[in-house]
Amino acid sequence: MLDSFPESQTFVTHLECGMEHDHYAADQLHGLSKAGKPLLVKYDLNALAQAVSKEELATRPATLWRYREFLPVRKSENIVSLGEIHTPLIPVPRLQGGNGSVWIKDEGRLPTGSFKARGLCMAVSMAKELGVTKVAMPTNGNAGAALAAYGTRAGMKSFIFCPDDTPEINVREIAAQGAHVWRVNGLINDCGKIVAQGKEPVGWFDFSTLKEPYRIEGKKTMGLELADQMGWQVPDVIFYPTGGGTGLIGMWKAFNELKEIGWLKGKLPRMVAVQATGCAPMVKAYEEGKEHAELWEDAHTVAAGIRVPVAVGDFLILRAVRESEGFATAVNDEQITAALDEASQKEGFLMCPEGAATYAAYKQELESGRVSPDESAVLFNCATGLKYELPPADQAIDINQPVDYSLFV
Amino acid sequence: MLDSFPESQTFVTHLECGMEHDHYAADQLHGLSKAGKPLLVKYDLNALAQAVSKEELATRPATLWRYREFLPVRKSENIVSLGEIHTPLIPVPRLQGGNGSVWIKDEGRLPTGSFKARGLCMAVSMAKELGVTKVAMPTNGNAGAALAAYGTRAGMKSFIFCPDDTPEINVREIAAQGAHVWRVNGLINDCGKIVAQGKEPVGWFDFSTLKEPYRIEGKKTMGLELADQMGWQVPDVIFYPTGGGTGLIGMWKAFNELKEIGWLKGKLPRMVAVQATGCAPMVKAYEEGKEHAELWEDAHTVAAGIRVPVAVGDFLILRAVRESEGFATAVNDEQITAALDEASQKEGFLMCPEGAATYAAYKQELESGRVSPDESAVLFNCATGLKYELPPADQAIDINQPVDYSLFV
Repeated sequence: MLDSFPESQTFVTHLECGMEHDHYAADQLHGLSKAGKPLLVKYDLNALAQAVSKEELATRPATLWRYREFLPVRKSENIVSLGEIHTPLIPVPRLQGGNGSVWIKDEGRLPTGSFKARGLCMAVSMAKELGVTKVAMPTNGNAGAALAAYGTRAGMKSFIFCPDDTPEINVREIAAQGAHVWRVNGLINDCGKIVAQGKEPVGWFDFSTLKEPYRIEGKKTMGLELADQMGWQVPDVIFYPTGGGTGLIGMWKAFNELKEIGWLKGKLPRMVAVQATGCAPMVKAYEEGKEHAELWEDAHTVAAGIRVPVAVGDFLILRAVRESEGFATAVNDEQITAALDEASQKEGFLMCPEGAATYAAYKQELESGRVSPDESAVLFNCATGLKYELPPADQAIDINQPVDYSLFV
Repeated sequence: MLDSFPESQTFVTHLECGMEHDHYAADQLHGLSKAGKPLLVKYDLNALAQAVSKEELATRPATLWRYREFLPVRKSENIVSLGEIHTPLIPVPRLQGGNGSVWIKDEGRLPTGSFKARGLCMAVSMAKELGVTKVAMPTNGNAGAALAAYGTRAGMKSFIFCPDDTPEINVREIAAQGAHVWRVNGLINDCGKIVAQGKEPVGWFDFSTLKEPYRIEGKKTMGLELADQMGWQVPDVIFYPTGGGTGLIGMWKAFNELKEIGWLKGKLPRMVAVQATGCAPMVKAYEEGKEHAELWEDAHTVAAGIRVPVAVGDFLILRAVRESEGFATAVNDEQITAALDEASQKEGFLMCPEGAATYAAYKQELESGRVSPDESAVLFNCATGLKYELPPADQAIDINQPVDYSLFV
């Protein structure tokens, strides 16, 4: 951690449209593909597998930069870091439904308190490498906070637009970390429009989810890190809170890259996309056997991070879910709130609502039989529970009265 | 991370009064010494040095349990863990005052978002080992949150008492994580009285700061981990936000244990106790050459975590500061607020007010000449900045009007 990051071989060969598979040059700025779809980064995995070993990785600091050869940044001087440590994989035996072990992967430990740090540290590092100095983004909160921190750290100007019902803590955090932030009296797509229309007059680079190719590569490290922590093995099932789905897409990409170089063998994890019943476009498309999801009208849920009515990477999410023999499922707000409460009261672990949705889904699918009690499962807690409003606690003692110690049982 | 913790040799020989040096048996429940002073845990360091090497430690997961031989827990089954990962040591070149490197050690990444997790995971593990099932604590917030989480995780009942001006987020977090919490219309010492007087009728164990011996051992891992991260070297100066001072005492104990077994050579870091001008009992005692500090009347500061008017370990703090050729210093609320703002605007790093006090002190002491611009320094950010109120950010855009893109420069 002391030194600047050492130089490393890199293996990016080109970028490829996730839909049409046409190629795009590496080391140039790109948004979406010609077909308007996300671009995926491609590597020379044969050369990569020759260049680095699991044993070599184990000697490096436990951060996401351990996986440097699997990542797109060419020059170490462009790495923009705020300490992306491995997040802990915490066994939660009291939440287990059977013999299969259950863990929470606590992504709230990353910079700015959420998994958004993984995507944004990579996207900002690549933007720096490619000469970007101004970036803009529409956000419901956590992604904007991560962009603010990494943008400032990189010496860039960042312009961030939030729907006006974004929680106060997120807006303040964005401003505190050196970004320029505006509340917009509209929805996330209105914010997206401002960003898109500003590209020419302002000259900023559009950092909207999946509209640049590198956030997926950052999120990919969730899969690399998980396999590494488990001794280059994987759990049977992964429950992932799914809004834009960058993380699910990224993890599935990681597992497949690891399989291709022979570091993972056998069955890959079943990927379960968890949504809220008030906003479940992926669940609907999954159940209807469709490749793309329709816009979800009147989206609402307590888990604001998965309130994403339309995702540009919908087909990539659905593809990962199907290829992995997983599924998409939805839980309602009551289940989410009860799951959050149960995890904290039983294990002392305070999840965020989106994380709690994964525990609610695990319970629901044990019940439904789609998950067996013998399957091991990892639940992704995507942000610290401290960013969310907790229920009041109003017991009081008056020191002017004798204390009734029989209360404390 | 996957397995339960492996068994390990342990080396505790006895406990010793920090003041009178009389001995107390290991593996029994203890509060303060007969002299009413904190007990320090003593190890057979010769045997420890034979049993474990730096190379062996490097193969273990990057958590505080890596240092198992330096810690008091005898049986692995008693370890109560929520994922105590190594906290990152983040270089902050834009905050540097000269050629000496400056790092922030970001303790906000620990469970419950503060360094209190280190002390409480150790104290709760030892309480479990010694058969305790009910614990109680007075707290201004973060320590109570950590006890709530670890107590629940251990299957204990915890009873927590806060002054009624404790921030709402802390009280709610304590309750959410399964503890019983009460607001008390008094100060922290009134809360402490309730805990002390409840010992007999309720039978709970008193977890007040330094009133049990193991929180220091948990905080000691800050020193072990820092030296490990720096390749078994140390910085020239450490700035530490000092309330009860458990961490400063613990780190100094760690450095001395490492020196005794030969893992650290040469000069140990100068320990700087940072307080607020509105509550600076250690600074006063340091400047007056005293061994103990007087109670500070009318304590006040924005950095509530260091608003501790009287510390039972005062003499241990002052001893560490003097032995290390460090000093105690105070900064005012304006300096703290300005330092917090500067760090986040320059480096994208949101400190907590207590952490920001260390940066304010670093700047002040560069100016005063007590720290040289060539000295390397570590600033301890003791909690996530997200637990504290941030300044409002009120820019808005009306989508019913044309957007003025000339705003975004």
